[in-house]
Amino acid sequence: MAAENLLSGAAPVAAVLPAGGSGERLGSTTPKQFCALLGRPLISYTVRALERVNWISDIVVVVSLENIETMKSIIKKYGHKRITVVEGGMTRHRSIFNGLKIFPESTLSSCPLQKPEVVIIHDAVRPFVEEDILLKVVLAAKEHGAAGAIRPLVSTVVASSADGSLDHSLERVRYRASEMPQAFLFDIIYQAYHQCSDYDLDYGTECLQLALKYSKTNAKLIEGSPDLWKVTYKRDLYAAESIIKDNLSQQVCVTTDMKEDAVQFGFLLHKTLKSEVKVKDISVFLYKNDNHLQNTFSGQCYNFICINAEKSDIKETQQLIDILENAKISVLHPVVLISVHLNVSENMSFSSGMEELAGIKEFAREVKKKNILVYGLLIHYNKLQETINSAAAIISALIKDRNPELIGQLLVA
Amino acid sequence: MAAENLLSGAAPVAAVLPAGGSGERLGSTTPKQFCALLGRPLISYTVRALERVNWISDIVVVVSLENIETMKSIIKKYGHKRITVVEGGMTRHRSIFNGLKIFPESTLSSCPLQKPEVVIIHDAVRPFVEEDILLKVVLAAKEHGAAGAIRPLVSTVVASSADGSLDHSLERVRYRASEMPQAFLFDIIYQAYHQCSDYDLDYGTECLQLALKYSKTNAKLIEGSPDLWKVTYKRDLYAAESIIKDNLSQQVCVTTDMKEDAVQFGFLLHKTLKSEVKVKDISVFLYKNDNHLQNTFSGQCYNFICINAEKSDIKETQQLIDILENAKISVLHPVVLISVHLNVSENMSFSSGMEELAGIKEFAREVKKKNILVYGLLIHYNKLQETINSAAAIISALIKDRNPELIGQLLVA
Repeated sequence: MAAENLLSGAAPVAAVLPAGGSGERLGSTTPKQFCALLGRPLISYTVRALERVNWISDIVVVVSLENIETMKSIIKKYGHKRITVVEGGMTRHRSIFNGLKIFPESTLSSCPLQKPEVVIIHDAVRPFVEEDILLKVVLAAKEHGAAGAIRPLVSTVVASSADGSLDHSLERVRYRASEMPQAFLFDIIYQAYHQCSDYDLDYGTECLQLALKYSKTNAKLIEGSPDLWKVTYKRDLYAAESIIKDNLSQQVCVTTDMKEDAVQFGFLLHKTLKSEVKVKDISVFLYKNDNHLQNTFSGQCYNFICINAEKSDIKETQQLIDILENAKISVLHPVVLISVHLNVSENMSFSSGMEELAGIKEFAREVKKKNILVYGLLIHYNKLQETINSAAAIISALIKDRNPELIGQLLVA
Repeated sequence: MAAENLLSGAAPVAAVLPAGGSGERLGSTTPKQFCALLGRPLISYTVRALERVNWISDIVVVVSLENIETMKSIIKKYGHKRITVVEGGMTRHRSIFNGLKIFPESTLSSCPLQKPEVVIIHDAVRPFVEEDILLKVVLAAKEHGAAGAIRPLVSTVVASSADGSLDHSLERVRYRASEMPQAFLFDIIYQAYHQCSDYDLDYGTECLQLALKYSKTNAKLIEGSPDLWKVTYKRDLYAAESIIKDNLSQQVCVTTDMKEDAVQFGFLLHKTLKSEVKVKDISVFLYKNDNHLQNTFSGQCYNFICINAEKSDIKETQQLIDILENAKISVLHPVVLISVHLNVSENMSFSSGMEELAGIKEFAREVKKKNILVYGLLIHYNKLQETINSAAAIISALIKDRNPELIGQLLVA
């Protein structure tokens, strides 16, 4: 892997994640880094974004005293690795400094963490950071001592005079918004924090500025993608949740039983879903082919459609749920499972149908505890292609919405 | 009304809405002001936000030549009033200048527009502007000649040197992001545009700066709310759509037929909905009390729940739909109508139930053309409070999602 080659032979790269903010701009009592997106705290997404980068050896999360236990339970629940939780200070800079201090100054220390050559500083509320930009800032920090991601300004920046009038406006093209991640040679930023004033620690907002002022290091500025934005307001939580849902609905796995009807319907559905919605891959395969399923899991598929020619049978669905559970697919994200039934008995009375439905609802409620959202879809054949289109539209809506209140419902295409 | 008193005796206030942008930052081929939110173009929301302010006499929308017909059809479809469409220029400043030019310099002109004392400049992609901030900038413009909304900076602003390194960072507290709306005494901004250079017209981004430079007017800066943000990236479209859905789901109207069961269920549902979801007002009333319904409409309710003790009957639902249509409630926003059925005949066979369902789907598809989303909800009594809770959760989910793909479905509580 390119990143590993570029970083080979190096002392480790660590990351510090300040997460001590109070969330007052959000207008919420829960600090924004702990707000739930699809049931999971925002900070867990950000931690995961760093954790999956295998050349980052340690991730130090800095939280305020009252959130230490919350943070530890998040780490446990979502199985995060290589994390150290540190108590924050009164301000952002003091929190980051606390995070840096836990790396030992000498190798004689009993601390299990190794002092890194390069340290990444990232915000807990920027969950969509990609390996690509992390690598860029780390490599630039190795070369220049410090580096940070920037973005074009969205609004013109103005300076106001004492009476609240416009003093001057800045020429937009000359300036950039300083975003995260940033990276530093550890000694450079550590020294800067040691030498800076209390005023800096209390009122400063910019690590790059500390490196410039106290370590005479002109940071390299690197254009980042729009995804690096900081979740600040309630609207940003909405946006983040939509982006996560969008990411989760990119890939669908279709399974069928061996009946001819089911296989045929599966292929037609496959074709229609592919042309109508953004679907990266659909696999149609026989039910118990675990190898194939395993491949789908490693491809991070979070949506499953089981087509049954037989009448509603919870057993086969249960089988798939067991596989999903063993593969721990639903630990990080809610999995959507749509059970499609082709043939509904003509003779069943509506009330016994209702009884059966109540059973499915109960079943779905149980399975939801495993973070798997089960919906039913009855195929009521009329005009074939019209029915397929309708099924594809409903499936696509269920996958995109991931609505936990509609589990156990039996929809009709 | 306070605003009218403060503005009384004044020459009119007009607004210019530059909407010529290409949307390249959005990564989409449709310019962002024409992207659909719940089926309706973003610009229509912004136009509506200005149009509902009755002391704004004229709204000038400036669009590029190729979008003039699109804009006119939007105005027609959504019934916007007091709008003049003007062709834009190559840049933002040139477009705004074009918008200002259509106000006649003398009253002898045959133009039906009157030259305003104060002109508001606002962005087409800031749909959530409130009357409050519009009034503030207009009053400040009357006093100071120019005024604009500002917001605290979210990120630190940095200046880069020629080699792409950090030159310096700005002290965040001293600067503000310049947002919209802005307002000017018409003569001040018009003169500034007449005197400014081609360089200003081609590369400038800030109207306040033109007023400062060419009309010696220090604009008053006014702190705005976070809602003023500019829809710039795809995530902003997601956020805007979520905010609109959230706004639309604040109020629910419950109607019941006169059967005792339905009225009782309505009251229980009322109570549960009120305690479980954010609902401003629920009215339980008899079905044909048009006066009461009319009041609900003027309160801008976009969610209706009809409870029927009888078996599924489309006639009563149709009646409500006719009332909604006459009141033009669904012109601007999709209306959700949930038809709740308490008693399902025990004897109906599942297949005839399916037939009926197919009928409801067909019906819902027709009604959707009127921008009314119809869903069915069967109440399958088991434990009463549990059923009510389940019904409230499903209703709340349907209202919040407004998912057009799930119309005509019969959900079960």
